[in-house]
Amino acid sequence: MPSRTYVYSFAEGATKDKMLLGGKGANLAVMTSIGLPVPPGLTITTEACSEYLTSGGQLPPGLEDQLREKLRWLEKETGKAFGDESNPLLVSVRSGAPISMPGMMDTILNLGLNDRTVEGLANATGDERFAFDCYRRFIQMYGEVVLGVEQFEFEGILAELKHQRQVQFDYELSPADLRQLVVDYKQVVARKGKVFPQDPLEQLLMAVRAVFGSWNNHRAIVYRKLNNIPDHLGTAVNVQAMVFGNMGDDSGTGVAFTRNPATGEKKIYGEYLINAQGEDVVAGIRTPQPIASLAQDMPEIYEQFTRICELLERHYRDMQDIEFTVEKGKLYILQTRSGKRTAAAAIRIAVEMVQEGMLTKEEALLRIQPSQLDQLLHRRIDPSANLDVLAKGLPASPGAACGRIVFSADEADALAQKGEKVLLVRTETTPDDIHGMIAAQGILTSRGGMTSHAAVVARGMGKPCVCGCEALRIDYDAQQLLVNGRVFRRGDILSIDGTTGRVIAGEIKMIEPELSEEFNTLLQWADEVPGLGVRANADNPVDAKKALDFGAKGIGLVRTEHMFMATDRLPLAQRMILAMDKEERAAALEALQTLQENDFYEILKVMSGYPVCIRLLDPPLHEFLPAAEQLLVDITTLRLTGGNVEELARKEALLSKVRSLSEFNPMLGHRGCRLGVTFPEIYRMQAKAIFNAMARLLQEGYEPHVEVEIPLVGNIKELTILKEEVNRIAAEVQAESRLTLNYHVGAMIELPRACLIADQIAAESGFFTFGTNDLTQTTFGFSRDDAEGKFLPQYLEAGILTENPFAVIDREGVGELMRIAVERGRKAKPRISIGICGEHGGNPDSIEFCYQIGLDYVSCSPYRVPIARLAAAQAAIKRAT
Amino acid sequence: MPSRTYVYSFAEGATKDKMLLGGKGANLAVMTSIGLPVPPGLTITTEACSEYLTSGGQLPPGLEDQLREKLRWLEKETGKAFGDESNPLLVSVRSGAPISMPGMMDTILNLGLNDRTVEGLANATGDERFAFDCYRRFIQMYGEVVLGVEQFEFEGILAELKHQRQVQFDYELSPADLRQLVVDYKQVVARKGKVFPQDPLEQLLMAVRAVFGSWNNHRAIVYRKLNNIPDHLGTAVNVQAMVFGNMGDDSGTGVAFTRNPATGEKKIYGEYLINAQGEDVVAGIRTPQPIASLAQDMPEIYEQFTRICELLERHYRDMQDIEFTVEKGKLYILQTRSGKRTAAAAIRIAVEMVQEGMLTKEEALLRIQPSQLDQLLHRRIDPSANLDVLAKGLPASPGAACGRIVFSADEADALAQKGEKVLLVRTETTPDDIHGMIAAQGILTSRGGMTSHAAVVARGMGKPCVCGCEALRIDYDAQQLLVNGRVFRRGDILSIDGTTGRVIAGEIKMIEPELSEEFNTLLQWADEVPGLGVRANADNPVDAKKALDFGAKGIGLVRTEHMFMATDRLPLAQRMILAMDKEERAAALEALQTLQENDFYEILKVMSGYPVCIRLLDPPLHEFLPAAEQLLVDITTLRLTGGNVEELARKEALLSKVRSLSEFNPMLGHRGCRLGVTFPEIYRMQAKAIFNAMARLLQEGYEPHVEVEIPLVGNIKELTILKEEVNRIAAEVQAESRLTLNYHVGAMIELPRACLIADQIAAESGFFTFGTNDLTQTTFGFSRDDAEGKFLPQYLEAGILTENPFAVIDREGVGELMRIAVERGRKAKPRISIGICGEHGGNPDSIEFCYQIGLDYVSCSPYRVPIARLAAAQAAIKRAT
Repeated sequence: MPSRTYVYSFAEGATKDKMLLGGKGANLAVMTSIGLPVPPGLTITTEACSEYLTSGGQLPPGLEDQLREKLRWLEKETGKAFGDESNPLLVSVRSGAPISMPGMMDTILNLGLNDRTVEGLANATGDERFAFDCYRRFIQMYGEVVLGVEQFEFEGILAELKHQRQVQFDYELSPADLRQLVVDYKQVVARKGKVFPQDPLEQLLMAVRAVFGSWNNHRAIVYRKLNNIPDHLGTAVNVQAMVFGNMGDDSGTGVAFTRNPATGEKKIYGEYLINAQGEDVVAGIRTPQPIASLAQDMPEIYEQFTRICELLERHYRDMQDIEFTVEKGKLYILQTRSGKRTAAAAIRIAVEMVQEGMLTKEEALLRIQPSQLDQLLHRRIDPSANLDVLAKGLPASPGAACGRIVFSADEADALAQKGEKVLLVRTETTPDDIHGMIAAQGILTSRGGMTSHAAVVARGMGKPCVCGCEALRIDYDAQQLLVNGRVFRRGDILSIDGTTGRVIAGEIKMIEPELSEEFNTLLQWADEVPGLGVRANADNPVDAKKALDFGAKGIGLVRTEHMFMATDRLPLAQRMILAMDKEERAAALEALQTLQENDFYEILKVMSGYPVCIRLLDPPLHEFLPAAEQLLVDITTLRLTGGNVEELARKEALLSKVRSLSEFNPMLGHRGCRLGVTFPEIYRMQAKAIFNAMARLLQEGYEPHVEVEIPLVGNIKELTILKEEVNRIAAEVQAESRLTLNYHVGAMIELPRACLIADQIAAESGFFTFGTNDLTQTTFGFSRDDAEGKFLPQYLEAGILTENPFAVIDREGVGELMRIAVERGRKAKPRISIGICGEHGGNPDSIEFCYQIGLDYVSCSPYRVPIARLAAAQAAIKRAT
Repeated sequence: MPSRTYVYSFAEGATKDKMLLGGKGANLAVMTSIGLPVPPGLTITTEACSEYLTSGGQLPPGLEDQLREKLRWLEKETGKAFGDESNPLLVSVRSGAPISMPGMMDTILNLGLNDRTVEGLANATGDERFAFDCYRRFIQMYGEVVLGVEQFEFEGILAELKHQRQVQFDYELSPADLRQLVVDYKQVVARKGKVFPQDPLEQLLMAVRAVFGSWNNHRAIVYRKLNNIPDHLGTAVNVQAMVFGNMGDDSGTGVAFTRNPATGEKKIYGEYLINAQGEDVVAGIRTPQPIASLAQDMPEIYEQFTRICELLERHYRDMQDIEFTVEKGKLYILQTRSGKRTAAAAIRIAVEMVQEGMLTKEEALLRIQPSQLDQLLHRRIDPSANLDVLAKGLPASPGAACGRIVFSADEADALAQKGEKVLLVRTETTPDDIHGMIAAQGILTSRGGMTSHAAVVARGMGKPCVCGCEALRIDYDAQQLLVNGRVFRRGDILSIDGTTGRVIAGEIKMIEPELSEEFNTLLQWADEVPGLGVRANADNPVDAKKALDFGAKGIGLVRTEHMFMATDRLPLAQRMILAMDKEERAAALEALQTLQENDFYEILKVMSGYPVCIRLLDPPLHEFLPAAEQLLVDITTLRLTGGNVEELARKEALLSKVRSLSEFNPMLGHRGCRLGVTFPEIYRMQAKAIFNAMARLLQEGYEPHVEVEIPLVGNIKELTILKEEVNRIAAEVQAESRLTLNYHVGAMIELPRACLIADQIAAESGFFTFGTNDLTQTTFGFSRDDAEGKFLPQYLEAGILTENPFAVIDREGVGELMRIAVERGRKAKPRISIGICGEHGGNPDSIEFCYQIGLDYVSCSPYRVPIARLAAAQAAIKRAT
């Protein structure tokens, strides 16, 4: 039986797939087949690896012969020979599994060097230093990965030598030093009882065995287990001729992008060095030339290279990042891959490639990472700026901000009115601070998680915020903050980056968000793809306007409680809660109604013609009251100091109310529709405010279209009781105004139980939307505020969770409940409108999932609308293909 | 076409069903057919009602004729005649739908009375007062339900008359007064433009129409809608001859049970009055005689009655509660129904009826309400005691307790050691109070819900507890408590009833729990029914022993945290948590390990041969530390009074630790296996303690069988990581001891997400058990502590929830998740053991559901094991039949 083929030249590999050749081998075969000047080489198949491993470490019969034969071909091809003292063939040896996989042996360079060929290399390159540097590196790498000598054995000798020579960098060592290192390294190997083989073929065979063996090292096994990669796949081995860019002035090396990776401009962009190796660039001894100069230095090579750039772009249909080397006037392409690029460049390249006929619109849409767009949608720190980073907190609300430190909301307000830019710094914020938050450029807190008051309100406002920055020690009395031993006083300038959580000393250079023409073009294409609609969450007319500008087709969530928290409303909200009798409460509610009616009027006016989903009051009432702890300290102080008796009595009464409303687990407490059921007058007031606003707008010729949403429904009777209330009030307003109001009543689905009874809910609703923040908390049984500060980071690190479920929908748990809810809901009412609000609505992976389970729309912060539009289109395109 | 039969005499009805005759009519027919002396009568069918209603209020053709004919028969049967002035036939008219249904017109008595027959009745009974009282009542009732005159019109006149006569009770009015009332009542009717018919036949026809019409009154329609009763059923009308027990000394009336309803003894039990109407008993003018005396007073009647009692018991195969009247020496049975009885009687009757061959064992088992058994399993208040009830709190842990008031755990401990019985009264309890709770007879708190510390610990100890009794004002400084204006001081005697939540002044008479021979017989029969197993939750050897005594077949839940909270362990637990370095923590853990090992050793010794499921540490660590609020007050005080600086520093450090561990929503926080993952040394210590205890027991010849349970699993990797840890430690102990340990590792399923991934969990587990307390909280999204004190009562009242979901499994939501989990779990591993712990495990309705979805066992408090054994048997019997 003739033996199976285990070794392919790159050219031969063109017809084979990456399961046999591995990813890297298949890629080299492709590049060779389309005529690129790739240094020649060969690939040993994954099958050889599998057989090696299952046979307990025997190279399969025939492999060694095939390898020898192919090496002879390689020698012919390169005009060099293994072990030839004057013109030695040197090769790289690389592993390459079918699925990219860290943990295995990676690369051995310059295999083929030995005590004799190193001299040949020195002669051929005229660079003794280079040759011996290569050799000592080769011995070390080979010693480590093939012979199992530990790294520190080599590093110790090198460090000792540098210390003796009083030099800092490797490249400062003389050729003689490097020769000495080679001698010492070989002694290390020998001392460990190992033999460094001088025969290049033996070097190669041992290296191949080492690559095969590394398939089963611990890290690789764990990685495969974690990622469900089958153990039997095995890895291929690629053996490729080395080329050298330091063989004289007709040699060189460089890196280039086929388009500008910063702007996307269609022009080759990169740099090169004549008579140099890639490492020389890293060492920083010489300054590379811009790629354009190559047209003068090596006009033919330049022309060839530009042709190859075009070829590669056409072949891969993407901007390429290409490494090349010129060896004695001959151009070699060492590597090509899709080039990394800024968001702006990504958009421009994608749009222009469509215009060039290289991509379809759908392909162009798939080319952009939606999350990348975020950097275009917020004012951000100039990437070129030097930053004095003081500490890092939670990235609570994206964007950069800079201003004078103030420690109170009142002062923020006062200074802002004088035209000062301020940064509000608090241990944490409360509803009392809203006016200060509005006035400030950004908010920085030392306590609280991603759903703390500061974080939620800031995100709602689209205002940069860093919270839970525990390194800060805020001293209100001294009006200063201490951070890692440095003191900042009231009025000092501080900056924050809400995108990364960084806190930075002083003023920073910032870049304004830019929405280029190409960006708009791309988003228009996205909107043309049928699939998910995109709405925004907005609580005020400014945000609503922004949402429209960014292309939202409605509002998916108006949080009415934010309207209770503004400076002019909070006292009314508190009066309502603390009211001793019905009359007092009614008076407070009436005043609130007038204010809310105007809020709704303004939002609905901006959104005329678009649907607006208004959620009735959701948070527990105690959120509108001061904290118990502060009251307790005040009361204890008043008692001990014999303070004002009336003040003491007032505070005690307030504390008693706060306590009676306080809850063990507010997240699971008396909130949402439970408030609606137990304090019906609040929802009545809100319904009245909504319908009055609608009536006014209709009379003025606008088209208000409202979805009244009942939060936290878990039981069908909660919905039916409250729906009846809302309908009753709508009927009243319709009767008074003689107008027909365009509204629906529906439920927010944010509890596991609601998902399970979604059929009942759908039967009683015009719509429902998923509140996935709460649904994630109840499905996992962990509170976001507690989890993110405590065990969640550890869970992500340990791989127990692969993503933060508050950022990306957990498809297995939360998503499964959503799937059940959609299925049951649509069974009861096939055409019911189903959406998602909550932060997942702006996350691309979650948007894809929402599309897959059949939602009608997603809703997210106005600033994420463009991202959602793109992600929605991508989800639809992916399913269609 | 001959008209359909619309009217049946009771005897004729014996072959018809209750769809045609209604429930009451069918029952009267049955009693008549088995030869009981039921006053004769007739039933108008439900069909007649339906036709009346669909025809828009026309009595069906032929009905009136049939009715006249049957009335003639009735006159013959009774020897009386409609409208006969000397011997009038009087009848009752009652509605009777196929399904019992409140809201419809119920009963009209004495129809047939008019201005002339009333005199006949007076003569016949020799009781003018009685006759006119009947008449005025008849006019009022007829006026209200047939003629639509409002009740207050009559009541006003009656009240006015009583005021004039200066009397308090109706029966104090003279015959002349009643004659006057009749005149006045008729005027009221006339003033309203209605006619009170004097013709008995007309009275009857109008009454029949009124009954038919009442089928469609508002309350009845709502009731049918709520209970899914079809609207077309209609109601029957029963017309029955009245009999009178006040027609001389050969007449009388009485009520009797066929067996003793308090003890179950097989002996007729009841009382009667000679020459009296039922109302005379209610009025309390004369003292009834015990039924035994009837043997002297009316020996023949007594003999006939005892025969009828036997007949009825045999027919209905149950103890009967019988109303009878003797009219002129003739016995009439007016009503029979299954008699209410105490739990003890229920058990004795059921067991004896099996022995008498009247019931099968299965039938006997179905006869007992499992929840009724609770009263037999705890010391309880003597039902005959007069109680001075002060207030009502939550019934947190059943049973009655009585003792001297103490306000601190230390004092409870000290006084108990001197032999005093004490009741621990606190605003709320903390782990610091455990020794006091152990020492006390019972616990009373003014704050906290059904899962507050006091409630949970007390239930675990089986100790009576009333908590969250908000009417109490506890003043620790003054050492007194104020309740509804009354003051109780330290040392005063107070009682509580943990079964009802009552707080009672002074000492009360109590009854010890009794487990009769019949009870044990019944439970043995229950165990013979194949189906659900029953285990108990127990945290110590005393409870484990109790569980065995009550028939538990293993322990379903050992909560290891309770072992951390006992007086001698708490300081160690705190030292572990507050440890500044690894060494200090290790030392504390080692000490805890020794203690836990002994705990496990003792429990497993008692349970040798039975499975014991031990749950690793579950609650968040801050539960072991003092409360932040108290520390805050202490610190503020120390600061202002310039107190001890070291003390201040210590308290500040402690507060800082408490704060760093404190959580916004502890229920959703850093607890359960999240602690196991982030502080692996705690679970390691617990595993080591378990396996060491097992090894010791094996060496001593016992058979420990342990299930190691990982709490709060939501993600499969939490389980696999911790399982590996446990297995590693088991392997260590096995290697050291050279013994094979009989153990499994499994998960507690208490999160929605766990239910959804139960297939993955089952694949990695030897068992799983549902923790339905937490599962209910997360599925509904409400915290028990918050819900029960705030909106849950209102929800139950408004019918939004029909049961407290923390007491009875919510089948629609929580149950649906359990069903999904069992389905997915068994699909992955068909024979995996699945149980339920948590309080639902002792609730009969929930036990039935657990049986239906295929659980292997339920586990509950030792005190509920008998209840669970019975409920489990009932569930299986119900499904089989």
